[in-house]
This record gives sequence, C-alpha cells and structure tokens, in this order.
Amino acid sequence: MDTRSIQEIDFIKRNGLLPVIVQDKNTKDILMLAYANREALDYTVKTGNAYFWSNSRSKLWMKGEESGNTQKVTEILVDCDSDALLYLVDSKAPACHTGNRSCFHNLLERNKLR
Amino acid sequence: MDTRSIQEIDFIKRNGLLPVIVQDKNTKDILMLAYANREALDYTVKTGNAYFWSNSRSKLWMKGEESGNTQKVTEILVDCDSDALLYLVDSKAPACHTGNRSCFHNLLERNKLR
Repeated sequence: MDTRSIQEIDFIKRNGLLPVIVQDKNTKDILMLAYANREALDYTVKTGNAYFWSNSRSKLWMKGEESGNTQKVTEILVDCDSDALLYLVDSKAPACHTGNRSCFHNLLERNKLR
Repeated sequence: MDTRSIQEIDFIKRNGLLPVIVQDKNTKDILMLAYANREALDYTVKTGNAYFWSNSRSKLWMKGEESGNTQKVTEILVDCDSDALLYLVDSKAPACHTGNRSCFHNLLERNKLR
C-alpha cells in the first residue's frame, strides 16, 4: 500500500468533484457512490464522518445528517491517478434513501452475459 | 433485488457518462473506477467483457484490449437513482496499469480518522 497526500488528489481534472465509492469495511459490500469536493474530503478527514457534495442541492452534506444513518470512515483510499476515492466505513445502517442497505440494489435487465 | 432496464439508466443527467465501479465478484475487492456511456454499456452487455469510455483518449475501450487483462462481467447493478453502475467481474488479473491488483492501492495520508 502506497500513500497519497490530500494535496496530490486531482480535483481539477474533474471540475472539482470526484466520485467516492463507499464500501462496508467488514462485509466489503458496496453501499453507495457519491461525490466529494476538496471541502467534503477535508470535513471527512477532520470529523471521521462521511461528507459529500450534493450536486442537486449544491451544498456540502454529511451522510445521515437527516436520516441519522451516519457513516464512520475508517480509511480513505485513492486510486492510481488520484481522481477517485474510496471510503471504507463502519456502519450497519441502510445507506440508501429507499431503506435498502445498499444503493446498488437493482439488477440490470437483459443481463444475459456470457 | 429489483431490476432496471438499459432504457431506465440516466445517462443524460451526467452528460452521457456514468461512473462504473468494478468489483471482484469472488473476493468483493474493488478493482477500479471508470466511466461508461451508453455504447460502452451496450458492448458490455453484448459481449460480456467490460467496456468503458476513455475521457483522455475520447474513445470506447475494452478493458484489457492492450494488456490482455480483460474482465468478464457476470452481473451489472444499477444504483437507486440510475446514474451509477457496478460491474461484478470474474478476473484474477491486475486491474491497474501499475500492475497492482486494484487501482485503489494508495492510503490517504493524514488519515487520522476518529
């Protein structure tokens, strides 16, 4: 495992907003995908809670600020070209606003893959 | 598990390009994050190999077309608002151009999370 500093993260390439995968650190289930700007990442590092940037509301948000289903972030991983993030979280709550554990609860139809 | 059709996928919201998480279906390790347009998704469904859209090269690409490290896609999941995808793949090859198994091989420094 190598390391990266926050300064190395390439927010510029993607107009300031990077995709963040949220994965359960225990089960390794993928819970959701959201977006973070530099401010959201700073807040996440500072508080240990998952913060994101909401495109639709144009505001910083802490996951669970309304639902109470916060996500404790134990590690943050950065991909090879520093433009995608992975939050490993310790959370047993539903990640999805639908009440599902994961936002990825839909199987693509016509999914006859070889 | 619900189902979604390709027609329901919301490519428009994100200018035609959706983030795709690639996860090892056996180990549940996250291997990489890339982007797909409608064409890349169609090719993936049709061939069973992971296809993406390359932003930097502005072209469709099949994962492994140069390295030989193709990814067999066994399932495709869609998130709750139909604007992020998850490819579950059967592949033992390195996903990263660095030779690492996963592109997410960097730990964020200053990672003192509570």
